Amino acid sequence: MQLFYSKDISSSGFCTLDAEESRHAVRVLRMREGDTINVTDGMGHLYQCRIVQADDRACTIEPILETTHGVGATHNETSLHLAVAPTKNPARMEWLVEKAVEIGVGEITLLQCDHSERTFLKTDRLERLALSAMKQSLHLTLPPINPAVTLRDFITQALNQTSDKATKLIAHCEADKPRTSIAAALQPSIDAVVLIGPEGDFSEEEIALALDAGFQPVSLGPSRLRTETAALYAVTAFNLINDR
Amino acid sequence: MQLFYSKDISSSGFCTLDAEESRHAVRVLRMREGDTINVTDGMGHLYQCRIVQADDRACTIEPILETTHGVGATHNETSLHLAVAPTKNPARMEWLVEKAVEIGVGEITLLQCDHSERTFLKTDRLERLALSAMKQSLHLTLPPINPAVTLRDFITQALNQTSDKATKLIAHCEADKPRTSIAAALQPSIDAVVLIGPEGDFSEEEIALALDAGFQPVSLGPSRLRTETAALYAVTAFNLINDR
Repeated sequence: MQLFYSKDISSSGFCTLDAEESRHAVRVLRMREGDTINVTDGMGHLYQCRIVQADDRACTIEPILETTHGVGATHNETSLHLAVAPTKNPARMEWLVEKAVEIGVGEITLLQCDHSERTFLKTDRLERLALSAMKQSLHLTLPPINPAVTLRDFITQALNQTSDKATKLIAHCEADKPRTSIAAALQPSIDAVVLIGPEGDFSEEEIALALDAGFQPVSLGPSRLRTETAALYAVTAFNLINDR
Repeated sequence: MQLFYSKDISSSGFCTLDAEESRHAVRVLRMREGDTINVTDGMGHLYQCRIVQADDRACTIEPILETTHGVGATHNETSLHLAVAPTKNPARMEWLVEKAVEIGVGEITLLQCDHSERTFLKTDRLERLALSAMKQSLHLTLPPINPAVTLRDFITQALNQTSDKATKLIAHCEADKPRTSIAAALQPSIDAVVLIGPEGDFSEEEIALALDAGFQPVSLGPSRLRTETAALYAVTAFNLINDR
């Protein structure tokens, strides 16, 4: 099964794939007029489409049927918002985005923290990796990658935008403060927001701010994990708990 | 906390760090005679040592005390043996070894499978990455990385070497055959062996062979995961279940 993406696809009318998707269908896979391809809008929908014009720069397609039946594609109703401070080495964030999207994440926001060594990271490359990972893993939802905001601003936004029921967690490294294991803190079928700090951890002030806003402190096991490993550990925990 | 490694360290007598560890202690961290360093033998022990001779190529140390108290270092009694087919792209295996050791794994064996695109991968670079990840994550056990063997040979060995109580799992991708979720198949405080196949999955014959040998078939959630992502998902599941 090969999954294509077009943000413009819908059940009504023709649609043109962008240059990269057109090249992949027509030049790489040598698809022709009349062939059938599976196209997602990255918002949970999957369309079986017929190729109307096999142009390798602007392939025109026509939706035949909206379905997810029998193609192995997945759309999770329960969703994790991962907020993570970018690592000093951008390759580690690229790796994280690829793996988090493969395993399953609803949204990723970059965090500017008091101890961040890197406060800015361009999201365009991360977005391309997210798209590629979505197609690879047959997910039908393309997680937004939001540019860096301060933890303070994120918490304010999260409280406004997230449902009251969502589990809100902060994974900090201060082992002398009370923390629950993340596996015990997450509940099946309940959305979650998880904060992961930079190499130097969250500051005392940031931890206090999150706790005041109702975030629960969690630990990610006994090992000292790098930022990107900690973030993927949280993503995997969320998916495991929802797969039980 | 900075962790050093010497396979020769024990509670009795002087010991000399290898060239890389000596350079790191003396040249990079500028440690001097009389300074205290923490050294593990990679077999579950941690020694507080005093530097006797701060030579940046062969630093001599003397153990003062064997302890793990208060240093955050971890040694897991329950252990996972990950057997995984090398990916075509060796960088993906390097990444996997780093992350699996950070999160916690007891042993890694490379598998030669019927559908493997790569059947050989040198283990020396993987061993260096495992050592570095062990120190980074403050683990006291250095997981062996075993060179590639066929699935048939691995199963025979695993049955001889692993305790009868260990949970034996094969993660295959045939969604039409019965499989349990890995989270349901693993039990806390019980060792496990998990088989992860190559890009093209295990062959029918390999799956039958593993099932005959008592391996349980498991799924790793609804997403289609790359080999290295599937392997790390299994490692994280094992650690989460043992951290509850």
